[in-house]
Amino acid sequence: MEDIIQVKYALDTFYFLVMGAFVMWMAAGFAMLEAGLVRAKNTTEILTKNIALFAVACTMYLLCGYTIMYGGSEGGILPDAWFGNSIADATVEEVLASNGDTYYSGSSDFFFQVVFVATAMSIVSGAVAERMKLWAFLAFAVVMTGVIYPLQGSWSWGGGFLSEAGFSDFAGSGIVHMCGASAALAGVLLLGARKGKYGENGHVNAIPGANLPMATLGTFILWMGWFGFNGGSELMVSNIEEANATAQVFVNTNAAASGGLIAALIVARLLFGKADLTMVLNGALAGLVAITADPLSPDPVISTLIGAVGGVLVVFSILALDKLKIDDPVGAISVHGVVGLWGVMAVPFNNSDATFGNQIYGAFVIFAWTFVASLVIWGILKAVMGLRVTEEEEYEGVDLSECGMEAYPEFTNK
Amino acid sequence: MEDIIQVKYALDTFYFLVMGAFVMWMAAGFAMLEAGLVRAKNTTEILTKNIALFAVACTMYLLCGYTIMYGGSEGGILPDAWFGNSIADATVEEVLASNGDTYYSGSSDFFFQVVFVATAMSIVSGAVAERMKLWAFLAFAVVMTGVIYPLQGSWSWGGGFLSEAGFSDFAGSGIVHMCGASAALAGVLLLGARKGKYGENGHVNAIPGANLPMATLGTFILWMGWFGFNGGSELMVSNIEEANATAQVFVNTNAAASGGLIAALIVARLLFGKADLTMVLNGALAGLVAITADPLSPDPVISTLIGAVGGVLVVFSILALDKLKIDDPVGAISVHGVVGLWGVMAVPFNNSDATFGNQIYGAFVIFAWTFVASLVIWGILKAVMGLRVTEEEEYEGVDLSECGMEAYPEFTNK
Amino acid sequence: MEDIIQVKYALDTFYFLVMGAFVMWMAAGFAMLEAGLVRAKNTTEILTKNIALFAVACTMYLLCGYTIMYGGSEGGILPDAWFGNSIADATVEEVLASNGDTYYSGSSDFFFQVVFVATAMSIVSGAVAERMKLWAFLAFAVVMTGVIYPLQGSWSWGGGFLSEAGFSDFAGSGIVHMCGASAALAGVLLLGARKGKYGENGHVNAIPGANLPMATLGTFILWMGWFGFNGGSELMVSNIEEANATAQVFVNTNAAASGGLIAALIVARLLFGKADLTMVLNGALAGLVAITADPLSPDPVISTLIGAVGGVLVVFSILALDKLKIDDPVGAISVHGVVGLWGVMAVPFNNSDATFGNQIYGAFVIFAWTFVASLVIWGILKAVMGLRVTEEEEYEGVDLSECGMEAYPEFTNK
Repeated sequence: MEDIIQVKYALDTFYFLVMGAFVMWMAAGFAMLEAGLVRAKNTTEILTKNIALFAVACTMYLLCGYTIMYGGSEGGILPDAWFGNSIADATVEEVLASNGDTYYSGSSDFFFQVVFVATAMSIVSGAVAERMKLWAFLAFAVVMTGVIYPLQGSWSWGGGFLSEAGFSDFAGSGIVHMCGASAALAGVLLLGARKGKYGENGHVNAIPGANLPMATLGTFILWMGWFGFNGGSELMVSNIEEANATAQVFVNTNAAASGGLIAALIVARLLFGKADLTMVLNGALAGLVAITADPLSPDPVISTLIGAVGGVLVVFSILALDKLKIDDPVGAISVHGVVGLWGVMAVPFNNSDATFGNQIYGAFVIFAWTFVASLVIWGILKAVMGLRVTEEEEYEGVDLSECGMEAYPEFTNK
Repeated sequence: MEDIIQVKYALDTFYFLVMGAFVMWMAAGFAMLEAGLVRAKNTTEILTKNIALFAVACTMYLLCGYTIMYGGSEGGILPDAWFGNSIADATVEEVLASNGDTYYSGSSDFFFQVVFVATAMSIVSGAVAERMKLWAFLAFAVVMTGVIYPLQGSWSWGGGFLSEAGFSDFAGSGIVHMCGASAALAGVLLLGARKGKYGENGHVNAIPGANLPMATLGTFILWMGWFGFNGGSELMVSNIEEANATAQVFVNTNAAASGGLIAALIVARLLFGKADLTMVLNGALAGLVAITADPLSPDPVISTLIGAVGGVLVVFSILALDKLKIDDPVGAISVHGVVGLWGVMAVPFNNSDATFGNQIYGAFVIFAWTFVASLVIWGILKAVMGLRVTEEEEYEGVDLSECGMEAYPEFTNK
Repeated sequence: MEDIIQVKYALDTFYFLVMGAFVMWMAAGFAMLEAGLVRAKNTTEILTKNIALFAVACTMYLLCGYTIMYGGSEGGILPDAWFGNSIADATVEEVLASNGDTYYSGSSDFFFQVVFVATAMSIVSGAVAERMKLWAFLAFAVVMTGVIYPLQGSWSWGGGFLSEAGFSDFAGSGIVHMCGASAALAGVLLLGARKGKYGENGHVNAIPGANLPMATLGTFILWMGWFGFNGGSELMVSNIEEANATAQVFVNTNAAASGGLIAALIVARLLFGKADLTMVLNGALAGLVAITADPLSPDPVISTLIGAVGGVLVVFSILALDKLKIDDPVGAISVHGVVGLWGVMAVPFNNSDATFGNQIYGAFVIFAWTFVASLVIWGILKAVMGLRVTEEEEYEGVDLSECGMEAYPEFTNK
């Protein structure tokens, strides 16, 4: 019997680590997606932001975020984390004595959670691309990953008032994706649109991305990583029921991405007459975001449809934000915010434990907190150091002013 | 004892899901490989085809393909699948009562199989690149992934007449790779060569790919994903014998890829005097295709040699197809078709359960069915909507006509 | 009881295979990193070197390296390996009779080890980029992966005199990374700097890489793959203690990479006034190299600091090597050599089983052997076939002279 507990603990821990590695891989996905969708002159900077925010997120979540979100072993916030106690693993004796309650390593839980906070932060970088100062962005990342996201996460996944109120969000359509999009929206509103994006008489100028294979690769990476994001959120795999559940999550996640892609492809064809690749990519991501709030309850065909609704929504949302002159170079607010909300609201259709009232309540709380807190932090940063590069720097490209090097020095004619 | 069955079921399911995620990753590999090997002006379109075909394959296989290939729970075709029954998981009681016969989740099986059909379809997109209409291609994908591949697959992996006849194809050198190549060949024959590929007096013009790092990345992705493709095809890992077998499959798969690469490198050096990177990449892929029909029986040194023969074959096959004016921009028909046949025929050398007669029979059936059925479908599409873009569109690049956007708007001088 | 042994064996084998696949993926990381950091005209060649060296490493390690490093089943060197005996798996009976001593498949061990030797060799290719002959490089790869690395590895991981002397290097800061860097240094010294790198009066000319998204992708790939590199080096996961240890290794590996990145970002900002992306990438890699010698003993905050020291070191090392006119286009000698040494020396701070004396001794032996043996081989190759391309070839780019094709034929204006 003890042997079985040991093997199950090992299997669940290993599963958590592999799923976490897949989620870590999503950081590469966001980096490639965003690098492909901006102009060549702003590529080095968006790459720097993406890989640096991952490091900042991992460090801040270690120093305080994880403890804020899940509590330290003795209830405190900073001291535990600083001494590494909050992620101490249970001993063999403790595990065996817990009667199966401790079924994976605490370190593996930290690893899985730390890559989630990086995901939330990655959403922000795309929306503010091509005009925000690098250091202001990283300063925001410190607060977002150290405090804003973890505190919000504690309310649901940390056993706080949202989970007690019955808010249901399996892997984080709201808690991760809408949270990231809310922070991004606050930043974009204070930052303003890129020069030349919006012309007179409501004309919207397309600013094409410089490297669509990169953007496509990023989407494939995110698609793959999402199996870890949703599949790992089952938290356990070591018995028949949990194994079945994890497998269903994989199937539904894949189905929703497919549905979102096909829907966006068709809508784009109807609206623009072309197979618009950037809409296709955002459609796949929208399908993934949409199913994330509950990839377990629906069957695969329903999951395809949930994803498809996400794929339709994202196209219209991107068009609508441009009407409102909210400039989001990669469509992150639409993909993660608008479709994240759809994902949260779709849960009660298939899961009788959730109600529309509770879902609206949870979504509102997440949005309100993240948006307001982010607005305050972005506002302080704007006053203290400024959020936006100068017009000349924006014209020349932020790569030279912020990073001192071009991404493609031999390919572009300036 | 029940605990052991539960843990084994969980381990086998988890193994299947991870291997399946690796195979899904191959879709990104094909996309990058093909995007790197076409010209810049046709890159957006090939990316769109690749990611859209994956979504189409997943959706069609869910709607009917899986049921055609493996049968629904009540024997029917469409109704079961439409209601998700065909991929229903066994309950805990059913698993425990099955005495180990049900050793992984049905959903995990669907997930593993669905990424296989996408692989078969990915092979087609490369061969018809740079001149086929996007919507005709996607229409073909619907039929290929919904019917042609699944019906063919049912004859061997679904327990049909080819498996009863003794045809042996472990992970699909024939069932997946030669099948995809056969469909591609039918399309290429109806489509014709790219303008300018074949000059007068039998002169063959090289049309270099625009982005070789992308193509190399694609090859690495495929190499990695192949560990899931072959490794997962053992279907079980949870005891000593199966674990040993899975490990041998990993080792042999890697050895064959290495052998294929080195052989193609040397042959290219002898023929052309240079280390031709595109041949090197195709050599690695040829090694992988060659070992796929039986990555378990040979020892690693023999596997290296089986791969090496594939690497030699692929170089001469690519040259031979050009002599025949069969224009395959990425060499897919050679890699997956010619070498797929070699893989099928190599099985009896190491596996006494297989005979050359049965292998020829199986290969012939797969080729004949897929080629003829595909020819019919391509022919109907040609009559109804046309397969080929106009000459002007081909000259301008299909990116603008099909997708309305360039892949690298800042890098190329038009 | 027998069932438990079987499941544990299966889990440990599967863990080894997945971790090995992650390490294999690092080969793609090195290829992308190096392809992004060289000039466009030398990109095809560095891609060819990277993917070909992987194949050479796998084949040579199969033919003799593995047996040299770990010994054949009957003590001999070549014969065993040639007949595949050295990687024979234990039978079910042998495993059950071993009382848990045989806890994973021998084939899975070979797979994990073979991707390590490829890593060591990948380090070399970057340092000698843009001017070394391709065939001389591959000839060196044959000796390095077949003999130099395996013999060195046998002294510690193979149970030789360094392990008996108490040298401690968990996953190979010294045995893999410093070894690769030592071979690279020997090559660079015989090869000389690229034309135009060092001007008069000690002026160092920056030679920017052609494709920074590729380089960033490579870094992300290496970061992800490193979870397999360090996490798999625990060798076992199937009980509570081992699962906890593996999870700690994942967390610490990630923490060190983050620390290294942030430190390099800050140091680069202070020194150059910019967020230098190439230094940021090398900082992350330095953090990974630094923690590799002991990712188990320190807590995550200490791991962050160990990585941060690596991140600081790497920036100054890159500047120092340029002062010495040791031209390393991608910083490989600094990342893997200098920081590899730091990693080895940092072990005793957290692990009381290690002493500074033993660590210095081990590092010295690894460096001395690898450097001298490599110098001899490079020297022979220089005499026999020459190491360096002609001045005209270097000026034109080695892609045309060595591979006969450009990496980006449509993007660059020559």
